[in-house]
Amino acid sequence: MSTLQTLDHYFTENRERHMEELKAFLEIPSISALSEHQPDMQRAAEWLASAFKDTGLENVSIEETAGQPVVYADWLHAENQPTILIYGHYDVQPVDPLHLWETPPFEPSIRDNKLYARGASDDKGQVFMHVKAIEALMKLDGKLPVNVKLIIEGEEEIGSPSLEAYIRENQNKLAADLIVISDTGMYGPGQPAICYGLRGLAGVQVDVKGPKGDLHSGLYGGGVQNPIHALVEILASFRDKEGTIAIDGFYDQVRDLTDEERSAWAALDFDKEAIKKEVGVKELTGEPGYSYTERTWARPTLEVNGVFGGFSGEGIKTVLPSEAGAKITCRLVPDQDPDDIVAKLRAHIKKHEPVGCTVTVTDFDKGKPYLTPYDHEVIQAAGRAYEQVYGVPTVYTRGGGSIPIVAAFDEILNLPVVLMGFGLDTENFHAPNEHFHLENFDKGLRVISTYYGEVEKLGL
Amino acid sequence: MSTLQTLDHYFTENRERHMEELKAFLEIPSISALSEHQPDMQRAAEWLASAFKDTGLENVSIEETAGQPVVYADWLHAENQPTILIYGHYDVQPVDPLHLWETPPFEPSIRDNKLYARGASDDKGQVFMHVKAIEALMKLDGKLPVNVKLIIEGEEEIGSPSLEAYIRENQNKLAADLIVISDTGMYGPGQPAICYGLRGLAGVQVDVKGPKGDLHSGLYGGGVQNPIHALVEILASFRDKEGTIAIDGFYDQVRDLTDEERSAWAALDFDKEAIKKEVGVKELTGEPGYSYTERTWARPTLEVNGVFGGFSGEGIKTVLPSEAGAKITCRLVPDQDPDDIVAKLRAHIKKHEPVGCTVTVTDFDKGKPYLTPYDHEVIQAAGRAYEQVYGVPTVYTRGGGSIPIVAAFDEILNLPVVLMGFGLDTENFHAPNEHFHLENFDKGLRVISTYYGEVEKLGL
Repeated sequence: MSTLQTLDHYFTENRERHMEELKAFLEIPSISALSEHQPDMQRAAEWLASAFKDTGLENVSIEETAGQPVVYADWLHAENQPTILIYGHYDVQPVDPLHLWETPPFEPSIRDNKLYARGASDDKGQVFMHVKAIEALMKLDGKLPVNVKLIIEGEEEIGSPSLEAYIRENQNKLAADLIVISDTGMYGPGQPAICYGLRGLAGVQVDVKGPKGDLHSGLYGGGVQNPIHALVEILASFRDKEGTIAIDGFYDQVRDLTDEERSAWAALDFDKEAIKKEVGVKELTGEPGYSYTERTWARPTLEVNGVFGGFSGEGIKTVLPSEAGAKITCRLVPDQDPDDIVAKLRAHIKKHEPVGCTVTVTDFDKGKPYLTPYDHEVIQAAGRAYEQVYGVPTVYTRGGGSIPIVAAFDEILNLPVVLMGFGLDTENFHAPNEHFHLENFDKGLRVISTYYGEVEKLGL
Repeated sequence: MSTLQTLDHYFTENRERHMEELKAFLEIPSISALSEHQPDMQRAAEWLASAFKDTGLENVSIEETAGQPVVYADWLHAENQPTILIYGHYDVQPVDPLHLWETPPFEPSIRDNKLYARGASDDKGQVFMHVKAIEALMKLDGKLPVNVKLIIEGEEEIGSPSLEAYIRENQNKLAADLIVISDTGMYGPGQPAICYGLRGLAGVQVDVKGPKGDLHSGLYGGGVQNPIHALVEILASFRDKEGTIAIDGFYDQVRDLTDEERSAWAALDFDKEAIKKEVGVKELTGEPGYSYTERTWARPTLEVNGVFGGFSGEGIKTVLPSEAGAKITCRLVPDQDPDDIVAKLRAHIKKHEPVGCTVTVTDFDKGKPYLTPYDHEVIQAAGRAYEQVYGVPTVYTRGGGSIPIVAAFDEILNLPVVLMGFGLDTENFHAPNEHFHLENFDKGLRVISTYYGEVEKLGL
């Protein structure tokens, strides 16, 4: 296989073209949460299928699911070599509040060696890197050192509702020796990390209905229950001031951190002041008895992601509104079960049911938490690939976010999962001004290409 | 002065033309709360000035204030007769949620002898009735039995911020013997009422700011305070489940109901089931120890009129939002003072200040509560005018709503105020599908014209 030097040369030579191609991918507003973007989902899938074909990947197909299509491709000519299943997603988060974007979310723009666009880091940029790593090896060597299968889905940002069925139906086709997912972050600038655990997700929408229409707060105020009050009482009952969750049994299944994990994490270079500055808060808060790292990586949370009801325009409107609602998600850790947590959430809401209003609870997507041993050989091989390019030891972390499908891969295909991420926590994915540091784009191309070689050496 | 029979004939003859004129007035979307409707405010004022002139009113002028103009007119040729100051407003409430309107809010439409449009009842329709009562008397008698001065403002729905200064600056010009305001309701269909007390208003907006931008709830959840949680904790702390307000000292200045009032109100024909059906709730809730009538007429309230923060679109967005906010108004009763209540609200918020977030409180408009003796001769004369047209005894009520300027009239001009209203509580003012029962439009024209004659008879 080509040396790191040869790869370096190839990626440098083709940098400008690669950047133009990535920009074209990022220009497609493939927001899976909003139904008006349905045609863009199809466009993004087609763009990807075409990029796969150009690279020399085979059996490229846009495969229908109950929701957005999965784009599949493979290259299976490395006889007696292991097969890597590569997963990513071509859908992106919504962009509101739009007015906070410095440049439009779907007009990619490079400033200060960072590429700004929705999806630049999460996850189009990282999916694109795998495609270009494959392109480089195919051009330079005429082949890949291992077999690869790619499945890139379009529903990750809405909880991958269709992918699990797709994996179950295609178990033989997806058979592999390991799975690589590039959708997580590095530990910090210049510090590569392999994430060996992720939080799960369980979410509900709570809708409170009061009077059949909005009422005049003077005429009816004091006589009819206000659904906003009913809602805020429920929402306030979920947590205490600092963030400890007050739902019966919520922590029952939480697996305690090992002493090894607590000390390894305590030894990590963690700059509390930098985090505070970065997010713009005066203090970091949360469940007492745990460090910030422990709270965000290994403790469950409950967040109200949105609340709405009544008048929110300019000025004042003395209305007693007809309805109010909130969107709520919990991040879960091993061994919490999303179905169990939703049942406990529902029981809590039932227990706090307000007078004079009707409450409806609707489930959102769910994802199980995931954890794999960090000393697994495919993970350690990834650590080595990072070290060759970045020149520093790789650290082993857990992630606060959720890739719900990771747990499904683990369960259905029973394969080790390598989370090889190149994002940085500061890159505003899920927020305005998402961007991707191009230093990690460049190095990541080399890491991924090198990793394919490291997997070949394992002799799986 | 013309008899009721002559008036009847006139209003019947001119009914169609009057309705067309009123529709034209209602077509102007004069929403004072939304700055984009600024040109419509001017159009509404001009429409009114033109209608005044057509009627024979004199000294018509659109008078500038710090905010929206006041439209003034008078007719002062009834020598040695009392002068009635007539107050109303040409601005209307916002119309959202627009999708709940059966016909567009600014395309007046008659269905089932009700006129549907924003402002039909509150208050353009009722202002228009005074103009047409004056028109009828001028046409039939060539003169009015009393002197009249009209001031119709454009900021009632945002709390009349400029009118108090206008009244203070024009005390001599506005000198009169009584004030008539038609902006309240009847007790029920066919049951005329004079409202002798109104609740006051005090409002604030609470804005909670957390991180400087929206954050990914997986990466930061558990480590950074969520401003929605901080907000709902504050909001939930304001009231108990049923509506008793938990702000220190909130009830200190509340004047107790007299035994006479409690028994008179208990004797009123009050149909609890009808109210429940009308607003569409299974139970009426509120402060324990008071009847529905007492709670809505004579007890103070705190209502969250709107709440907003984070993602409220379709689907899910796992965001830890940067900010959240709420709009809150209190209805006040004698002898509560709006400034004192806002100070207590602010102290309560300060006491419940959340960790990890910054809270900003902004005052909205304020209005003092109002109460006048119901046995005053100008009020009793109004009761007689109603009785002649409706054929049933008038009842004496208090109102849950606020006309903040009523207290200002009381205080600055020191005149008795007659609240002669023709609306019905079911008419959805401040909500979608506002309408006005044309039966009360027709009868109201006759009541107003008759009342001018009753005032002449008082020999003030």
